[in-house]
Amino acid sequence: MTGEARWIWYPGDFEIHQGMLQNFLREERGMGWPAYWHLDDCRRNLIFKRTYDLMTPTSFRVLGKGLGHVVANGTKHPLGTVIKAGPGRLDVEVAIGNPQGLPAIYVEGDVVRSDAGWMADDFVTAVPAGSSPLYTRPDQDPEVVEYVSELVEPVAVEAVDGGALFDFGRMVYGMPEVQGTAFADGATVELQFGESRAEALDAEWCYYSEKGFSPDVATRRRAFRYLFVPGVEPACIDMVARHLSFPIEVRASFSCDDELLNRIFDVAARTFLLCSELFFTDGIKRDRWIWAGDAYQSYLVNRYLMFDTQIDKRTQRALRGHAPQRQQINTITDYTMLWLIANVNEYAMDADAGFLAEMWPKMEDTMRFMQTRRDADGLVCGRERDWIFVDWCDMDKEGPVCAEQILFWRCCGAMAQAARATGCDAAPWEAEAARMRELILARYWDEELGAFIDGFVSGARHVTRQTNILAIFFDFVDGERARRVMEGVVLSRDLPPVTTPYFRFYELDVLARTGHLAEVLEQIRAYWGGMLEEGAVTFWEQYDPAVEGAEHFSMYGDPFGKSLCHAWAAAPIYLLGRYFLGVRPLEPGYGTFEVAPRTEFFKSLECTVPVAGGSVHITYQDGTLDVTTNRPDAMRTRGEGR
Amino acid sequence: MTGEARWIWYPGDFEIHQGMLQNFLREERGMGWPAYWHLDDCRRNLIFKRTYDLMTPTSFRVLGKGLGHVVANGTKHPLGTVIKAGPGRLDVEVAIGNPQGLPAIYVEGDVVRSDAGWMADDFVTAVPAGSSPLYTRPDQDPEVVEYVSELVEPVAVEAVDGGALFDFGRMVYGMPEVQGTAFADGATVELQFGESRAEALDAEWCYYSEKGFSPDVATRRRAFRYLFVPGVEPACIDMVARHLSFPIEVRASFSCDDELLNRIFDVAARTFLLCSELFFTDGIKRDRWIWAGDAYQSYLVNRYLMFDTQIDKRTQRALRGHAPQRQQINTITDYTMLWLIANVNEYAMDADAGFLAEMWPKMEDTMRFMQTRRDADGLVCGRERDWIFVDWCDMDKEGPVCAEQILFWRCCGAMAQAARATGCDAAPWEAEAARMRELILARYWDEELGAFIDGFVSGARHVTRQTNILAIFFDFVDGERARRVMEGVVLSRDLPPVTTPYFRFYELDVLARTGHLAEVLEQIRAYWGGMLEEGAVTFWEQYDPAVEGAEHFSMYGDPFGKSLCHAWAAAPIYLLGRYFLGVRPLEPGYGTFEVAPRTEFFKSLECTVPVAGGSVHITYQDGTLDVTTNRPDAMRTRGEGR
Repeated sequence: MTGEARWIWYPGDFEIHQGMLQNFLREERGMGWPAYWHLDDCRRNLIFKRTYDLMTPTSFRVLGKGLGHVVANGTKHPLGTVIKAGPGRLDVEVAIGNPQGLPAIYVEGDVVRSDAGWMADDFVTAVPAGSSPLYTRPDQDPEVVEYVSELVEPVAVEAVDGGALFDFGRMVYGMPEVQGTAFADGATVELQFGESRAEALDAEWCYYSEKGFSPDVATRRRAFRYLFVPGVEPACIDMVARHLSFPIEVRASFSCDDELLNRIFDVAARTFLLCSELFFTDGIKRDRWIWAGDAYQSYLVNRYLMFDTQIDKRTQRALRGHAPQRQQINTITDYTMLWLIANVNEYAMDADAGFLAEMWPKMEDTMRFMQTRRDADGLVCGRERDWIFVDWCDMDKEGPVCAEQILFWRCCGAMAQAARATGCDAAPWEAEAARMRELILARYWDEELGAFIDGFVSGARHVTRQTNILAIFFDFVDGERARRVMEGVVLSRDLPPVTTPYFRFYELDVLARTGHLAEVLEQIRAYWGGMLEEGAVTFWEQYDPAVEGAEHFSMYGDPFGKSLCHAWAAAPIYLLGRYFLGVRPLEPGYGTFEVAPRTEFFKSLECTVPVAGGSVHITYQDGTLDVTTNRPDAMRTRGEGR
Repeated sequence: MTGEARWIWYPGDFEIHQGMLQNFLREERGMGWPAYWHLDDCRRNLIFKRTYDLMTPTSFRVLGKGLGHVVANGTKHPLGTVIKAGPGRLDVEVAIGNPQGLPAIYVEGDVVRSDAGWMADDFVTAVPAGSSPLYTRPDQDPEVVEYVSELVEPVAVEAVDGGALFDFGRMVYGMPEVQGTAFADGATVELQFGESRAEALDAEWCYYSEKGFSPDVATRRRAFRYLFVPGVEPACIDMVARHLSFPIEVRASFSCDDELLNRIFDVAARTFLLCSELFFTDGIKRDRWIWAGDAYQSYLVNRYLMFDTQIDKRTQRALRGHAPQRQQINTITDYTMLWLIANVNEYAMDADAGFLAEMWPKMEDTMRFMQTRRDADGLVCGRERDWIFVDWCDMDKEGPVCAEQILFWRCCGAMAQAARATGCDAAPWEAEAARMRELILARYWDEELGAFIDGFVSGARHVTRQTNILAIFFDFVDGERARRVMEGVVLSRDLPPVTTPYFRFYELDVLARTGHLAEVLEQIRAYWGGMLEEGAVTFWEQYDPAVEGAEHFSMYGDPFGKSLCHAWAAAPIYLLGRYFLGVRPLEPGYGTFEVAPRTEFFKSLECTVPVAGGSVHITYQDGTLDVTTNRPDAMRTRGEGR
């Protein structure tokens, strides 16, 4: 950020504060539903500091969000006043406290300004100040999230049951705007929102409704495709929707000879964008919360759609909160560890050692916290209030479970990677990873079954796909063991199938990376294509082809409990980009990267895949593969189509 | 609180939140001046829980500050709705999140209501909910501090330098209210506030001023006796002051044959009350911050004026913030330890084991924090950003200083006391106290000098009154050593005098407790009587009889930097009540207490001193002492006057 002034704050605090607000956004039938975990807020009281050696006289002005003052070479000045300084040494300290929001400052000046080089001090630790390319202008307020506003006209208006049903033909995340004779003489109407037609028409069970609505009423921002106004004729009401989108650029495109795949990619992209704002959330109707497990997958999709490292980092900061860690992230043991691993995944994307250095103390703190969750043998176990989740499935959770140990082994490896990248000592983490590896193989590998068992305490030797999928996904095994795991478990037709879309992400990845691409493509066509056949305009939290009609919308015992625009449903973007277009970094930050399209599955391709610092364009036509990039440096291709 | 419904919150969070707001209240010449330490805020997200076994059907309603819902036996209800329940088991959970203020609930109902018995859960730890007798009605908001409002007429209006000077004849902590022709046609005026006349008349240096003031403008609440309106004739403006006082009952009175002492007591009481609101602050013009050292003394004054244990506890909670402790309280090592000791002083007042149990985890946490401040020998030393303050004086601070070790020894004793009161293990703390005692005597007691030296590292054998006063004040020495300390140091005429009112509190206490009452009385008459002679309506932060005129108001290099209404200046209330009226608890909570008036210093007395659960009335006339109490239980007197 050198050079340009920005709003600056204590690093992480913007995200922790906005993340708290995000986790308070869930709404259900008129009730607030705060996330059920500990929510940190930003620090309240800071000092920003910097020393200059000024060559010539200059002047500057400090804007602040909060109360405080500026001390320049020992003299106090009010915020907002022009301060003259130089030539010579200038020590600036800005005291800023904000009792409700984010304490932040913006320093305007030719030389003295809030670019890189300021320290943020919370009276305990001084660290380089945080900022965001989202907040670069003095007239902005880091408390206010800036959306792009768009008016959406309904594609159909229908008289139903004496009321008016508006179909916007797409998912809207915003607010209705109305006029019409229905509001004459101060009359008001009721609104019923629906992601589906059935939901909008259901007065009792629709997730959001609004009584006493009129053109003057500002409703909360909500997710909907349909709006139903009971008791009002369509002619009496004009309805448009104001859709608010968070500005993130899509840097990928996918076009092949299979129109269904093209549509799947586009609808997945639309779905994913709607769930990508300041943070990756699970869904726009529900929960609107920031989940580390969902985010872990979103980071991977992001690589192949937007390559926006800022949203990844914002999400990581918000998820973790302040040190010391008080509970498992989202209460879930596996999610804490996915958060930790995601930090080095991020480093793979952009090789930003500064971000790793910022997160390193919190990664160390997380490992200290995890230490309180290890038994005498060093196995990760659940303490009171910890949720050993892994997946919704029949897993033997008596005693420490294998899946958590694999994650912990991977955490040790991630710590070693991060230590190397930030100049810290990697050796203790490498040793711990090696120790964990031996321990896991000794306790959980069942040579006879050729599989990892869920747990060893019960003696049941229970095998699930989930545990073994993670062993492959995190490269815990290779060679003969990996072959046995794939054949005996992942590809087995005898074990219960993975039923959650969350875990199917890992399953499809593992199938793809082990070469079962035809099967993966078939599953994409069937599962996501199935939703399109049901008329989906965004992809759903879950899809079961066996049910019919409005049954599709029910979940968690609630007839409209299912989210119809859910981030993890964007998995095809990742699978297509990573395995079918074959783009992946070989070094951190794509210093070198590979592009290896699997042309045998396509007649033609016309695709763009983002990489760090540019993108790759892939065309394939009549057996000829062209791969070009606007990144002129290191790359290799596997040559022509095969 | 059993029985009556109240607003409930996470214990400590009301005080931590309001304490943060308090520490943001400092204002200087148009600039905000946040306290220069880490300020915690309340938790943002809570669950309140309770289980009932209902005999009959009943109903209840939950009001909440924030967003959330009520779950009654598994069914969700919006806040504010009437919920029917019973007979039988009822599990209530209230989810409440507040992104800016204090999450709090109020449960109205015949049976199901927010009285004692609710648990507050921050998703990490569930503890008995906190509350305050200040917030008992459903229409209240724990975010809003409720003051008693009073209109104060000026006692004099004077034309000065073409402007109007209003003298309210007393200290006001509030806002001006105006009318008059000066505001015709939308005209505005400027206001200059002054604790002193000189300050109000000084356009450049008065602490508070307000430009563009008119009847419509609400100013911030400020401390002033004088208001000056430049350029406006007195006839053109009507000015009154709205004084806001926090409701705390004075439960003491003092009247003797010495009218000067009576006036000193009354002005001290007025001073102290002004600085006693939600919290004990240092002063009402400046700093308005909560300082543990100042508070430690205020707790002692409080015992002899208001006996309001609530303000003590609120102040203790606000000072400490959340665990883990991140820095020395107010950045000062000694203040952290005074905070810790004050918890058991509080127990001496009211024997409230519940409060000690609430604070115990934070006391343990403070001792863990202090452990990071001990050297290899176990001596407390200063780490980066720690302020080894003790007093403003020439002290040998090379290496660990004696005063901090005495405080730490006392902390170990306080931990032992608190452990005994809360059923924890006192033995380790008793052992540590014994060890510290030996260590201090070995390192700091100079047998030849008959004194404690400040430090041993420099080899200078430097002796200050301060170090030795603390040794007496905290009963670290008795017998022959105490006698030598008193005669050789405290009563010495050769050592530099104590110059700060803060430390004179300890000095006067030590003089009084060692029987030098005549000298103490003389000092009270001279120092506090001196301020009265200068026209003080409240007692000042500091008073030097050697200076003249407006020089009295200068401090810290600022012509009006001195606070003219400062809590520690109320010391005579404590000294008179504790040593001259001789009231003190002999058991925690005044289970037994002593009343031993030193009648030899008075011809007559007509005084009331509060004790736990009542008060003591002392009259002395014509050699006859009458001591009565409305507490009928245990007490003894020393009989008649002497």
